[in-house]
Amino acid sequence: MQAPLRRGTVYGTLLNHADALAALGAAVHESPYKGPPKVPVLYIKPRNTWVDDGDAIVVPADVDALEIGATLGLVIGRAACRVSERDALDFVAGYVIVNDVSVPHASYYRPSLRFKARDTFCPIGPFVARDVVADPDALAVVVAVDGRVVHRASTGGLIRPAARLLAEVSAFITLAPGDVLSVGVAAGAPRACAGQRVRIEIDALGALENPLVPEKGTVA
Amino acid sequence: MQAPLRRGTVYGTLLNHADALAALGAAVHESPYKGPPKVPVLYIKPRNTWVDDGDAIVVPADVDALEIGATLGLVIGRAACRVSERDALDFVAGYVIVNDVSVPHASYYRPSLRFKARDTFCPIGPFVARDVVADPDALAVVVAVDGRVVHRASTGGLIRPAARLLAEVSAFITLAPGDVLSVGVAAGAPRACAGQRVRIEIDALGALENPLVPEKGTVA
Repeated sequence: MQAPLRRGTVYGTLLNHADALAALGAAVHESPYKGPPKVPVLYIKPRNTWVDDGDAIVVPADVDALEIGATLGLVIGRAACRVSERDALDFVAGYVIVNDVSVPHASYYRPSLRFKARDTFCPIGPFVARDVVADPDALAVVVAVDGRVVHRASTGGLIRPAARLLAEVSAFITLAPGDVLSVGVAAGAPRACAGQRVRIEIDALGALENPLVPEKGTVA
Repeated sequence: MQAPLRRGTVYGTLLNHADALAALGAAVHESPYKGPPKVPVLYIKPRNTWVDDGDAIVVPADVDALEIGATLGLVIGRAACRVSERDALDFVAGYVIVNDVSVPHASYYRPSLRFKARDTFCPIGPFVARDVVADPDALAVVVAVDGRVVHRASTGGLIRPAARLLAEVSAFITLAPGDVLSVGVAAGAPRACAGQRVRIEIDALGALENPLVPEKGTVA
């Protein structure tokens, strides 16, 4: 099922999984954060990154493997400006599977567009209406590469669960119908290489599957 | 004149004016850059930030003044992927005046969306077709607040002039028709407060003028 809305801005959220934050260790107390982020730390996946289920993810020529960031996206249904946590999910039309692909990089701070915003780096998968998902904060997220499960996580480990995240983001950015807010990637994101196929499954949403292909002019 | 294209992604470029980079002093040799940026450093102004000539810029309640980032925007006319510097301007449909508004902040590194992406923080002004501008790298940029000139700069001081910037960005992001790539803000960006009017003039493009208003529920 396709989302009923024209897609707007696609936001990613950094460090919203407790395990992803824990994986930073002492670094979280150093500059620039000097402690866990007090507000959601966002970045944008621009439209050159968007592809659909089945489309190829292009591995840049100078990169060996890509990081596969399996996450849940909230699709905004009506303009959300300073909404309360209690009402936040009323502003959601539905959910999508997002594969927030990155070039592996050491810095966890707000990432460079060269790592997060390359062409094809954001497959977005099946849309389901809000009422299909009983609880967005209790969904299993499974990643398989070439049919083998390589990562299991859950939307249950969020520092800011879906409604709270949306409320806090809407405090400084008005989200518009068609915008997508992804809740964040768990620790230990797996990697995949050109020639492999990546499949992400999320409870109640189905699956998003994409092959990785080498950049033209290079050999896998 | 309105741009003939649906607007896509609006990119800003950090530290592309020689004087803006010089203003960093020794900090440019510290982490994270450890030297002047080797590639364009980009950020995105999402659509909640876009307003037109004459529209209000909303000053958040917890902020005294906003930084006015006067800059030239290149409007992409056809898909630009790994274009050469020599051909780059052939991919430009025209130019716009961009007011890249920020909450003043100390860190020069890739800025938080809370500083750069608040609602109304990106007035975009008159569009002129490419052939109206003889040389995008030789345009005076003047900012006036309440009719008094407070800042004068030029697109002549760019580390990456327009064509080179577009070529280098297109090496890692495919720019699509309607995308806007702004060339960057000069050092010493002026500030303005709620109740004032900001006017940006760029040679050959005309003027972009916007009033600053307090966030609802606050007093200027």
